[in-house]
Amino acid sequence: MSIDEEQLLLKLFTEKKIEKGDHFLTEGHVCKSLAMIGKGLVRYYINDDGNERTYYFNRDGDFICDYESFLPQAPTNKNIQALEDTTLYLVSYNGLQQIYHDLKEGERFGRLGIEQVFVNVIQQLSSLYNDSPELRYRRFLDTFSDISQRVPQYYIASYVGIKPQSLSRIRKRAAQHH
Amino acid sequence: MSIDEEQLLLKLFTEKKIEKGDHFLTEGHVCKSLAMIGKGLVRYYINDDGNERTYYFNRDGDFICDYESFLPQAPTNKNIQALEDTTLYLVSYNGLQQIYHDLKEGERFGRLGIEQVFVNVIQQLSSLYNDSPELRYRRFLDTFSDISQRVPQYYIASYVGIKPQSLSRIRKRAAQHH
Repeated sequence: MSIDEEQLLLKLFTEKKIEKGDHFLTEGHVCKSLAMIGKGLVRYYINDDGNERTYYFNRDGDFICDYESFLPQAPTNKNIQALEDTTLYLVSYNGLQQIYHDLKEGERFGRLGIEQVFVNVIQQLSSLYNDSPELRYRRFLDTFSDISQRVPQYYIASYVGIKPQSLSRIRKRAAQHH
Repeated sequence: MSIDEEQLLLKLFTEKKIEKGDHFLTEGHVCKSLAMIGKGLVRYYINDDGNERTYYFNRDGDFICDYESFLPQAPTNKNIQALEDTTLYLVSYNGLQQIYHDLKEGERFGRLGIEQVFVNVIQQLSSLYNDSPELRYRRFLDTFSDISQRVPQYYIASYVGIKPQSLSRIRKRAAQHH
C-alpha cells in the first residue's frame, strides 16, 4: 500500500468504544457500518418470539457486519451485542465504496472478502439446520476455541440449540472421551 | 470494453449443449465452471435419502453455478439438471480468475456479482426454512413467472415443499382470490 492509501484508510476508519451489554446493531435498523474489533467480543442473535437465539460470535481481529442488511442497505432482523467492553474501528458503507474505488487492490480485496464471508455464512446456516447438538458443540469448540472461556455458558447453549442443562450433559460426555 | 477484452471473453467462454435430463453438476463432484444459459432451463436439487428436493431454477440469460462448491473448489452435495435441451456458455474457475485479473472492471464486476448472489442465496435459504407453502408458492410465481408454464408441476410442488395434490389445492384457492 502507498502512503496515500494508508492515509485514506486512517481517514475512513473511526474508533468507537461500546460497553458490555450495548448493541452494535438492533433489529429493524440498517447495518450502516462494517467494524473491525480491536479488542472485545460480540454475539449475533435473532429474537424468536421473545426467545433470543444466539448464532455467532466475533472477537479481537474479526470484522463485524450483517452483510444481508449491509449489502442492500436494508433493515435487519438480527441483533449484535457486546459481551465485553469492546473497541471497534468502523467504516461506513460509503467509506467502503471509496476504498473499493480508490485503493489499487480495493476491488480485489472486496471480492475475496465477500467470497469468504459467503462460504462462511452458508456453512453456518447449513450447520444450524442440519447438525446434531453434539456436532454443533464440537464445531463451536473448533471455531471459537480461543474464546470458549469468555462466552457465558447459556450463550454457548443457545448457539448449540439446547438448554444449559443439556449442554452440561454433552460437556460431561465429551470430557469422558478424553 | 476494449476489443482486446471482448476477444479475451470470447476465448474464455465455450459453448456446450446439454440434453433434457442431463446433469450440469452431480453431488460428490466439484463445480468447475460458471455457465450462462443461452437458451434452456435447469433445476437445482438435493438428494435427501432418495427424496429429491428441488430448491431453485435457472433459465435463459441466468448464470448457473453452485458457488458453495465453486468458490472453494470443494465437492458439492447438490445436483443441477437440465429440464429442457439447454445451450450453455461455460467459463472455468481459472478462466474467471483471468477475467478478474485482466479486465479493467473485472474485479469490480466480480465483487458486485458475488454480492448479489450472496443476498439472493441467503433469501432463498431463509424462505426455505421460514415461509409457509402458500407464501413459497407466491414467491415461486413472483420469481419465476416467465417459466411457470415450462416447469413440471411435481418440481413446483417440490420447490414449495409439499405433495403435488396439496399444490393443486393451493392453486385452486389462489385462483378463487382473483
